[in-house]
Amino acid sequence: MSDVMTENNFDVIVVGAGISGLTAAFSIKKRDPEAKVVVLEGKDRVGGRTLTVPLISSTGTDYWDLGGQWIGRSQVHIIKLLEELGLKTYPQFIQGTKFQQLGETRVRSYTSEIPDLSLWALLDLHWLLTKLDRFQSELSVEDPCSHPRAAEWDAISLAAYLDRTLCTKGARAANEAAVRCILGCESSQISFLYYLLFLHMAGGIKNIVEATDFTAQEWKIQGGAQQISQILAERIGEHAVRLGDPVTVVQQSENRVVVSTAKGWTGSAPYIILAAPPKALEHIAFLPRLSEERVDFMKHMPMGNMTKVIVTYEKAFWRCKNQSGQIVSDGGEATVAGCPLGPLSITYDATSYNGCPALVGFLGGEAAVCWTTQTAKIRQKAVLDHFAVFFGPEVFTFLDYIEKNWNDEPFSWGAPVSYITPGGSANFAKAIRRPDGRIHFAGTETATSWSGYMSGAVQAGERSALEVLFRLKPSVLKEAEIPTVTLLSAQHRHNSITKEGTKSDRCRFIMKTIFSISLGLGLLTASVYIFKHYAGNEEVSVRWVRDPL
Amino acid sequence: MSDVMTENNFDVIVVGAGISGLTAAFSIKKRDPEAKVVVLEGKDRVGGRTLTVPLISSTGTDYWDLGGQWIGRSQVHIIKLLEELGLKTYPQFIQGTKFQQLGETRVRSYTSEIPDLSLWALLDLHWLLTKLDRFQSELSVEDPCSHPRAAEWDAISLAAYLDRTLCTKGARAANEAAVRCILGCESSQISFLYYLLFLHMAGGIKNIVEATDFTAQEWKIQGGAQQISQILAERIGEHAVRLGDPVTVVQQSENRVVVSTAKGWTGSAPYIILAAPPKALEHIAFLPRLSEERVDFMKHMPMGNMTKVIVTYEKAFWRCKNQSGQIVSDGGEATVAGCPLGPLSITYDATSYNGCPALVGFLGGEAAVCWTTQTAKIRQKAVLDHFAVFFGPEVFTFLDYIEKNWNDEPFSWGAPVSYITPGGSANFAKAIRRPDGRIHFAGTETATSWSGYMSGAVQAGERSALEVLFRLKPSVLKEAEIPTVTLLSAQHRHNSITKEGTKSDRCRFIMKTIFSISLGLGLLTASVYIFKHYAGNEEVSVRWVRDPL
Repeated sequence: MSDVMTENNFDVIVVGAGISGLTAAFSIKKRDPEAKVVVLEGKDRVGGRTLTVPLISSTGTDYWDLGGQWIGRSQVHIIKLLEELGLKTYPQFIQGTKFQQLGETRVRSYTSEIPDLSLWALLDLHWLLTKLDRFQSELSVEDPCSHPRAAEWDAISLAAYLDRTLCTKGARAANEAAVRCILGCESSQISFLYYLLFLHMAGGIKNIVEATDFTAQEWKIQGGAQQISQILAERIGEHAVRLGDPVTVVQQSENRVVVSTAKGWTGSAPYIILAAPPKALEHIAFLPRLSEERVDFMKHMPMGNMTKVIVTYEKAFWRCKNQSGQIVSDGGEATVAGCPLGPLSITYDATSYNGCPALVGFLGGEAAVCWTTQTAKIRQKAVLDHFAVFFGPEVFTFLDYIEKNWNDEPFSWGAPVSYITPGGSANFAKAIRRPDGRIHFAGTETATSWSGYMSGAVQAGERSALEVLFRLKPSVLKEAEIPTVTLLSAQHRHNSITKEGTKSDRCRFIMKTIFSISLGLGLLTASVYIFKHYAGNEEVSVRWVRDPL
Repeated sequence: MSDVMTENNFDVIVVGAGISGLTAAFSIKKRDPEAKVVVLEGKDRVGGRTLTVPLISSTGTDYWDLGGQWIGRSQVHIIKLLEELGLKTYPQFIQGTKFQQLGETRVRSYTSEIPDLSLWALLDLHWLLTKLDRFQSELSVEDPCSHPRAAEWDAISLAAYLDRTLCTKGARAANEAAVRCILGCESSQISFLYYLLFLHMAGGIKNIVEATDFTAQEWKIQGGAQQISQILAERIGEHAVRLGDPVTVVQQSENRVVVSTAKGWTGSAPYIILAAPPKALEHIAFLPRLSEERVDFMKHMPMGNMTKVIVTYEKAFWRCKNQSGQIVSDGGEATVAGCPLGPLSITYDATSYNGCPALVGFLGGEAAVCWTTQTAKIRQKAVLDHFAVFFGPEVFTFLDYIEKNWNDEPFSWGAPVSYITPGGSANFAKAIRRPDGRIHFAGTETATSWSGYMSGAVQAGERSALEVLFRLKPSVLKEAEIPTVTLLSAQHRHNSITKEGTKSDRCRFIMKTIFSISLGLGLLTASVYIFKHYAGNEEVSVRWVRDPL
């Protein structure tokens, strides 16, 4: 008995073996190799919301990502980790014509970064994006509710804001399609304040919606994103990662936290890191309860709805037609009873690093919900039919077809990220990252940079590791690491974060300056684009199905 | 082994021993005394969101309700059940002066049903209530999303609607105070469409906010509301109610549903009724998963935040001062760091049937969240201080003081009801009451009449009982009961509810007529009130603390 007790005494217990939890464990072990760390995971695999699978490919077999897949150079935390783990990247293919189906069933082609909308819709969209970027730049990432207009913005949905700001159907539809893929929800379901914060944490809306240099869809990882977690688990030591046994009880006493699992495993540690999304935490009984603010906050933080589809091909026939493989659609035609909109919101070229052609499509928000209620056969037909509207009948001659419904993935219960519903942000600062006694929080939802992305998972994991090490063994921390930790760990209930204020004020000033410059450049680019677009308007044709060449 | 199997084979398994689940079991047993029914409950008591406790009273000891307590004559389902169970009612005391603290810290007294707002605020409020009642009367209770403006209304929060409709601070504050108590949330957190539906199911906003004849706060139950569940449990047979053992797994096969509990109990039945709120269902593993629409819907249906306080006294000192004990406040002065508003939203006289004096107060929405993070001592002081602002220093000389934080009540996880967040109603018709294979749904959230109230719990329980009996043993149903059941049981996935349409069209016509008449009468009353109020304006004085006599 006493042996068992000793065996299961840890320095830190991490709950969740996704990128965030494993990064936390890895960061601790890196700074303190002696530290006894265990990572507990309910799934029978590591990787969380990343999952890499083999598919039949033009060369026989290759690997594709059914979960998180993209990174960009401005995502410094994941970039640094990839270097450390020896993982290589390759660019997302974006050359050639793109298609849009926005606010109407017909398809238009375009080649710029911005959909080919009417002049009014473009001006409308431009005006909106300018406002969004101004608003988001004013927010404090630590406490968005400190903004003078925070209560007003939190009390409305993004849809309510879009409906009162936009005048054109096309601009409205472009936003809806984007939100479905970025957050897995409808614009009516998300707090406008939280949407602004999400943009802020990514450095602006351009970074989120584009696939150009430095943006969120810039690069992919050679061999797949799940390798990040697999290599991290190897480095931590496979024995230190317990799979397929979900945590059921977390009991906090004055000195320790005792964690129990469904299969009867029990362990204890002075500190634990919860690196699981809010929905997964609902399955855990906390004794005592988590703070009232956190429980209330989590009530208003559901996970997005997302299904991802990969279709592999012998040839990248779209590239032969000078098509990029990219589409953006707010649904197009309703073809099946029970589904008021078509399945796809966004598609991209998904050709692997080894050159095996493939397309990837996303069903997000209510499209993910209604299409999942259909049979697999009906859904596959609808997805391929939707692909065919843009890329022609060649889409039907595929090598392999796979879909991943993240909504039924245990302990994720959705993807890509948990968003905040209107009115749900009041306790943000008191809940999102503030340690609850001996419990610390990681997970991409708790990131301050690129929250909702793999990079955010890394940043949050590292932050939580520093927090815990600062309480456990501050001597292992470098000088430069300590101030951040001091501030974060000091965020006990009812304490105000005064120093943080000064720091983030400075950050805001620098960010504002950067934003002003990039906004100026953006405006210039947009003006040039609009000028070029309308000067050469006769060249842009509207086609139902685009001809080859 | 086979014995055990036989022993635990039931005709119906009911999950949840609140009013709804017990009514379902009772309704089944009444129509088919042979039916083998078991009711499973996670709490160690029956009653769900009702709970009656003994407190020190002026006569020694008496009983008070810490949960649901009020009923009204228009709540036909609970009235009928009370008669059947032999429970008696008594009127809520509302005579005398009331107080308000709306949009300001100072206190005003009034005697009518409507707070003493300025002429503009009264007109503002009147205009809003008229609009709300017109909108709600147009909704279909079966499918509110069928209304032409449903998507628009669901995409905004109640706050967004109030902010764009109301011009005065007083009218806005009155609404916020009401929503905190009625639904346990902030107006920013709730879908405007759902709020309208909630009003619709109660027959209009007057029924919800007043304590006059036929409204929701008309009567109380002699001896307390938990008796309803206690007597129902007796009638069903105490052995048929298993307490303190939460359901963990619900496995549905082609012929049966197998239910397992935390303590290892297993039982099976051809049909089960889930009579637990959405949040409680999240703790159960469903195999296969509940329908995608239901899961998505439940994601957007958090439970309200609510703390209820009862303070007992030797004498009803407020009655001596011709005060009713009623206040409405949107928070008043912030007195404690971390709590931006005062604790109380609504108070009432809570004198028991036996005449033992008491006051009851409600902390709802964010007030319930922030005040719960304070120590019990600080919270009690703040509550009594807030009472004293209205009723004077006599409030401090109490006999007994009890508070019930419903947020930490296991398997309720909040009170009074689960509301829908903005954008969350899309799958309402497909999820709220539609059976999921062999799983039927009860609970006040699934009611079509007085959802969120005890009466709704009864109505939903009876409806689910009829649904199950129709599939299990239709011969036991009376002719009159069958059509409803046919329609409800026919609501399988992907089917449209055509007949229901015609029926509810007729209902809507009748209800519209009733509404038109009551609206007319309401307008008349309001006009008379406004006339009287301003004719006799000099009599209404503004007082910080009201003098006796």
